Amino acid sequence: MTGFFSEDTSVETVNARMGADIDPRMAEVFAAVIKHTHALVKEIGLTQAEWEQVIGFLTATGQICSDERQEFILLSDVMGLSMLVDAINNRRPEAATENTVLGPFHVAGAPERAMGETISLDGKGESCLFEGRVLDLDGQPIEGARIDVWSDNADGFYDVQQPEVQPKWNNRGVFTTGADGAYAFRGIKPVSYPIPDDGPVGKLLAALGRHPYRPAHIHFIVTAPGFDTLVTHTFAGEDDYLTSDAVFGVKQSLVAPYERREDGAETTWRSPFDFSLTRV
Amino acid sequence: MTGFFSEDTSVETVNARMGADIDPRMAEVFAAVIKHTHALVKEIGLTQAEWEQVIGFLTATGQICSDERQEFILLSDVMGLSMLVDAINNRRPEAATENTVLGPFHVAGAPERAMGETISLDGKGESCLFEGRVLDLDGQPIEGARIDVWSDNADGFYDVQQPEVQPKWNNRGVFTTGADGAYAFRGIKPVSYPIPDDGPVGKLLAALGRHPYRPAHIHFIVTAPGFDTLVTHTFAGEDDYLTSDAVFGVKQSLVAPYERREDGAETTWRSPFDFSLTRV
Repeated sequence: MTGFFSEDTSVETVNARMGADIDPRMAEVFAAVIKHTHALVKEIGLTQAEWEQVIGFLTATGQICSDERQEFILLSDVMGLSMLVDAINNRRPEAATENTVLGPFHVAGAPERAMGETISLDGKGESCLFEGRVLDLDGQPIEGARIDVWSDNADGFYDVQQPEVQPKWNNRGVFTTGADGAYAFRGIKPVSYPIPDDGPVGKLLAALGRHPYRPAHIHFIVTAPGFDTLVTHTFAGEDDYLTSDAVFGVKQSLVAPYERREDGAETTWRSPFDFSLTRV
Repeated sequence: MTGFFSEDTSVETVNARMGADIDPRMAEVFAAVIKHTHALVKEIGLTQAEWEQVIGFLTATGQICSDERQEFILLSDVMGLSMLVDAINNRRPEAATENTVLGPFHVAGAPERAMGETISLDGKGESCLFEGRVLDLDGQPIEGARIDVWSDNADGFYDVQQPEVQPKWNNRGVFTTGADGAYAFRGIKPVSYPIPDDGPVGKLLAALGRHPYRPAHIHFIVTAPGFDTLVTHTFAGEDDYLTSDAVFGVKQSLVAPYERREDGAETTWRSPFDFSLTRV
């Protein structure tokens, strides 16, 4: 009889219940969610006690969320789902610079700076010259490309995580290319840091035998009229966590050179990287 | 290079990250969660905007949870997952009474009552005599079986939902069988009612073109030494929502007869039902 539940027909029973006039994409997504979640429960033979643990975990994850903390995004991150969604929605030709996740620390409205200026305002860390060009897929320079950049400071924190400690807009800035498509600015060699691991997702990582660290990286959003927006990081190649990023953000093509220079007593760096954008 | 993310190898990359010394069941469950969630995202081509909607939905679902409300259980219920977990964990021979979900309204410690007594304390509703026997799979009566019963009142609310309105333990009681395995008590013919639909799950049901109602039912937990615990309901057969229970709790074998009797001006009912338990 229609509508009655059985283990064998569970997917069909639930999906047959949808109304005929609902949004077609809603119907498609929900049907797939039911198919895959039921298959998961059947495959692992989820026990009643484990089901209660899952309910408890999801509830705790939701309850710790606030204006300053998004634990479900963190969960998506450590499951590789954020990177997967990013990958699916940003498939590009081989020659184009690859996307990676935006992360939670971008702030719109960072100061526009002149080429060559520094973004590091707290005097901490090892100075690094970031430079390169913004190109189209034929290698031609893009004029008027906007490079929005942000990184952590030498203690591993973004300015918004330490509003009382760091100067506002520390390690942030926006640069616009000229006719040569070139960019150059000073910042610091970024450092690795842990994602917030004092909540349910941190406990999950511990239970999985995983550490919460992200390898050192600097974030970029590169936009130009007529081109697809590029959201990416570049990574420092020798980082201990490069092949074990807690959020799976690393792609091989995004590992940038960091060239060491001894300027007297001081160590400074140069990290050259070209961005290649696809046309809309 | 190992540890780097790509769309094609996303599942392997995430699962390879688990530590070697973790709990084997944790590893098995997490690996399956990753396999199925990544397959889901790939199959539907989840967009960035849809991903944000999912994050928002899960967050709202967690945030509305409280000591009095468990929205994630409700979500599991309307997805058929609660019934699926119940089914997987309570596979029984054909002759045994089938399980269905416990629901959120069971309260331990209901009053022990003598056979034939009523559980309805608020004087509302149409009186119903519930009676039958508790049997083993050979049809032999089980002595000392404990029947813990609860239902909504004629307004569609459980006593715990209306502590200021209903008498404590209204429509609840515990009965213990004698040597004949028989039970009998008076209650009311239960009525259909909506699950809480003023939160995220209610919005989901609306988007799916589904109503929030459960068909009229009465809950039972039947226990006896040496037998598997039975958690079930019986349903009133002519209910409008019988084939569209919002939580998929109905099984055909649990639809019980409700025999109408005209006692002078009053309508009363009799609902006979035998429970058949499996040995541990």
